[in-house]
Amino acid sequence: MTQPAYDIVAIGNAIVDVLAPADDGFIAENAMTKGAMQLVFSAEEADALYAKMAPGQTVSGGSAANTIAGMAALGSRCAFIGQVADDELGDIFAHDIRAAGIRFDVPARAGQPTTGRCLIFVSPDGQRTMNTFLGASHYLPAQALDRDLIANSAWLYLEGYLWDPEEPRAAMRAAIEVARAAGRQVAFTVSAEFVIDRHRGAFHDLIDAGLIDCLFANQEELVSLTQAADVEAAIAAVSAKVPLLVVTFGPDGAMAVAGGERTRIAAEPIDKVVDTTGAGDLFAAGFLHGRIAGRSTEQSLRLGAICAAECIGHYGPRPIADLKALAASI
Amino acid sequence: MTQPAYDIVAIGNAIVDVLAPADDGFIAENAMTKGAMQLVFSAEEADALYAKMAPGQTVSGGSAANTIAGMAALGSRCAFIGQVADDELGDIFAHDIRAAGIRFDVPARAGQPTTGRCLIFVSPDGQRTMNTFLGASHYLPAQALDRDLIANSAWLYLEGYLWDPEEPRAAMRAAIEVARAAGRQVAFTVSAEFVIDRHRGAFHDLIDAGLIDCLFANQEELVSLTQAADVEAAIAAVSAKVPLLVVTFGPDGAMAVAGGERTRIAAEPIDKVVDTTGAGDLFAAGFLHGRIAGRSTEQSLRLGAICAAECIGHYGPRPIADLKALAASI
Repeated sequence: MTQPAYDIVAIGNAIVDVLAPADDGFIAENAMTKGAMQLVFSAEEADALYAKMAPGQTVSGGSAANTIAGMAALGSRCAFIGQVADDELGDIFAHDIRAAGIRFDVPARAGQPTTGRCLIFVSPDGQRTMNTFLGASHYLPAQALDRDLIANSAWLYLEGYLWDPEEPRAAMRAAIEVARAAGRQVAFTVSAEFVIDRHRGAFHDLIDAGLIDCLFANQEELVSLTQAADVEAAIAAVSAKVPLLVVTFGPDGAMAVAGGERTRIAAEPIDKVVDTTGAGDLFAAGFLHGRIAGRSTEQSLRLGAICAAECIGHYGPRPIADLKALAASI
Repeated sequence: MTQPAYDIVAIGNAIVDVLAPADDGFIAENAMTKGAMQLVFSAEEADALYAKMAPGQTVSGGSAANTIAGMAALGSRCAFIGQVADDELGDIFAHDIRAAGIRFDVPARAGQPTTGRCLIFVSPDGQRTMNTFLGASHYLPAQALDRDLIANSAWLYLEGYLWDPEEPRAAMRAAIEVARAAGRQVAFTVSAEFVIDRHRGAFHDLIDAGLIDCLFANQEELVSLTQAADVEAAIAAVSAKVPLLVVTFGPDGAMAVAGGERTRIAAEPIDKVVDTTGAGDLFAAGFLHGRIAGRSTEQSLRLGAICAAECIGHYGPRPIADLKALAASI
């Protein structure tokens, strides 16, 4: 096994976020579930919802892409695989990921659909409600996988959101095989309860086959995944099968379970919760970077909490402050 | 003269801003003048510069459009005239201006060039350096003017930046005639020294003909416009010809001169200068809104200072905080 050229390669949705404030009445009137992510199935539906949004800001997003952007900001050597269309939003996504120092080689896809877009309504309390039109992101073909790149990355990071469409799911299965064959490790985030509801069996198959070295979930997702009576039972069930389980508890901190040993930390104090978009993604960034950099489990969790806190303090899911400087205290 | 349906209609560049941090070394290496606006003359040149930018955020901009967005946030009844292309950046601009409650009817222009784009490098001290590819914004035709709308707005607000290209300049001249014929008032911002250098004579002609009721300039621009020995002489020269002269002094506050009487205010205190992009535009927004709402000159200046301070406290030129709530203290 050669030394890998990259610390991590992620496969995920290549999405651009549009963020604008909205009050809770708007969320209710438009039949959204506050704090959740729901899919928008057509460009027309997305346009209609956009027309109702307040003036906003447009920034690169995508769960795994946000995680990788955070890791790159911390100094990890990163690559990303995802599908944009040949349009202006695709240009923005590709620019931002490359400008973060991340290798990104997947060619833009010509024609319809457009680059994926996530319309994010930010409530006065900082909670975010996401409406995602996946667009071109759905069309990541298995042949877009750079097998050499995957074999040459210490970790493969996969996003549950992308498990839903058939083509990327096949691509992710193929990527796991390549990573395994090269002796690399696989991290997986289950992303959301609706994803779990649709793919619970497949996720269990991956876990039971020992293909997941590190699993990220929040407490609700973990309970949903296991259909356990409570989070305690869920942690026990999953940690028996996954070498490294990371569970986030929102404002109540996070826990890692490795080799039967539990490590728990509190969340970082935050002056003001401005926008929680990307907080989980950035938590994963800090944790994985710490792990890869040889930090202890507790230090890695604290790095995750610091990155999540930075993210929550501003609009948008990608880091704005100097994460390396923030991480220097750990 | 009927009661106008709108408080103000603005004609300006319809531009989308891309903002990212950059250090002063980057500004120097790329032969930019820190704090200035320079034009980028081709889409290729803009793309090459974008490729060098850090990950950024994309928000609607354009000087007069920002002013109008601020006025709408304060409660003025506003309309905007400017030219976008039929592309995703044009969609963002049109969405944001309409979502702010501003009437905007100019159809998107098909084909090349793309919607105008301003690449803004934000220095650690909050100063912004702008590189503008005007794109479709240049192609605003005189026939795009809605004469009824202009006649039906108490004020016409014009942006000097748009005086440069021939077609919009002709449109703006036509708009002044329509406004004058309807007994409306005309406000003009000279925008930048390079604009003044190219059109000093034309600006003096407008002023000498009594076509400008309210002129906005910062102190350097006013000196450049008049080629006076100092700002004091420049104020004396212009205020003799313009009924309402508003001069901004950056961190040293602002002054209005009306009927020979000078009113001066200090700048609002600011916790941290994050990004000065749009500060002048938002100052004009607060001042004009105050004026239109019947506030005193001093109150109007203070409203301007409050709006500028809000703008300086975050990335991007459009208001994020609730300006009405901030203005309630005046």
